[in-house]
Amino acid sequence: MKFCNQCGAQVRLLIPAGDNLARHVCQACGAIHYENPRLVVGCVAEHEGLILLCRRAIEPRRGYWTVPAGFMENGETLQEAAAREAREEALAEVAIGSLLSLVHVLHADQVHVFFRAALPAARYAAGAESLEVALVDAVDIPWHDIAFPSTDFTLRRYLEDRAAGREPYHFTSIDRRLQPVAQPDA
Amino acid sequence: MKFCNQCGAQVRLLIPAGDNLARHVCQACGAIHYENPRLVVGCVAEHEGLILLCRRAIEPRRGYWTVPAGFMENGETLQEAAAREAREEALAEVAIGSLLSLVHVLHADQVHVFFRAALPAARYAAGAESLEVALVDAVDIPWHDIAFPSTDFTLRRYLEDRAAGREPYHFTSIDRRLQPVAQPDA
Repeated sequence: MKFCNQCGAQVRLLIPAGDNLARHVCQACGAIHYENPRLVVGCVAEHEGLILLCRRAIEPRRGYWTVPAGFMENGETLQEAAAREAREEALAEVAIGSLLSLVHVLHADQVHVFFRAALPAARYAAGAESLEVALVDAVDIPWHDIAFPSTDFTLRRYLEDRAAGREPYHFTSIDRRLQPVAQPDA
Repeated sequence: MKFCNQCGAQVRLLIPAGDNLARHVCQACGAIHYENPRLVVGCVAEHEGLILLCRRAIEPRRGYWTVPAGFMENGETLQEAAAREAREEALAEVAIGSLLSLVHVLHADQVHVFFRAALPAARYAAGAESLEVALVDAVDIPWHDIAFPSTDFTLRRYLEDRAAGREPYHFTSIDRRLQPVAQPDA
């Protein structure tokens, strides 16, 4: 961020009075521009034991498989966002169920939220952001070609829970920010 | 939003190619500025059956009571955000527990997330954003002076669940956007 989106003047990174984190502050109008994590919302949708997967037509991770998911929009609920993403990416009408996973993707400033879902009818097709969409048996999930760690985590918890006949929620954090490397003793 | 935060030129509200919602798009550099819901995170912290409440020193709802909560920052988990807010607003060190509520605040473009928490030691005081902080018995909660509907919802579910000895999570939506008023028959 280089300019104020309210008045167009330059912003500077500084800690405002009463705050303890650096923010982009406008040098002309004084507006403080906060940046916060964005929500990515999706679902693991099942039809007769098979799971709905999409192969991505867009970057990042074009060509890799994922479950329908995307950025939450203003004015919708988490469940509405998850259902909308299934509609857009897989042309599928799903019924959103219980909360499945919450993943802190720290290097991307994102929180990913996934739900369990039912796909009542086996009607689906590739939306504009998908190369192909498939209903896949658990044993056929392409684990080496899954697009994102949050999808991998979520699918594994889904299958474990399904086998155990339970529906808990799961938290995890993923952090690919560079860490200081510990210096080995000489 | 009137100006591009990347180049300082004017933005226009239009639907980008391949999208279906209006976005602020820069007329000079082409940058698309997405706006998404922000996460507000807090906790209901308990010490020997009493609940930690803060009276707000800032707008909105200055003078009204709430639980410690605030905007999630980049680089932290939901649990870290909830604990940080308790530290900042109530100078209290809490241990974050299970997920309590997820509230879609549709008119504010926010998602509020609350956790159950333990306050091991009765050490607390008003932080910069609080007029006072108190440990309150359930029967003494000032229901008419609670700051926000999401806090009211969350405290009520917390007490019901505690009485029932269970720890589920709860979703709800709050929407104060103006609705079209139905026209009565003449």
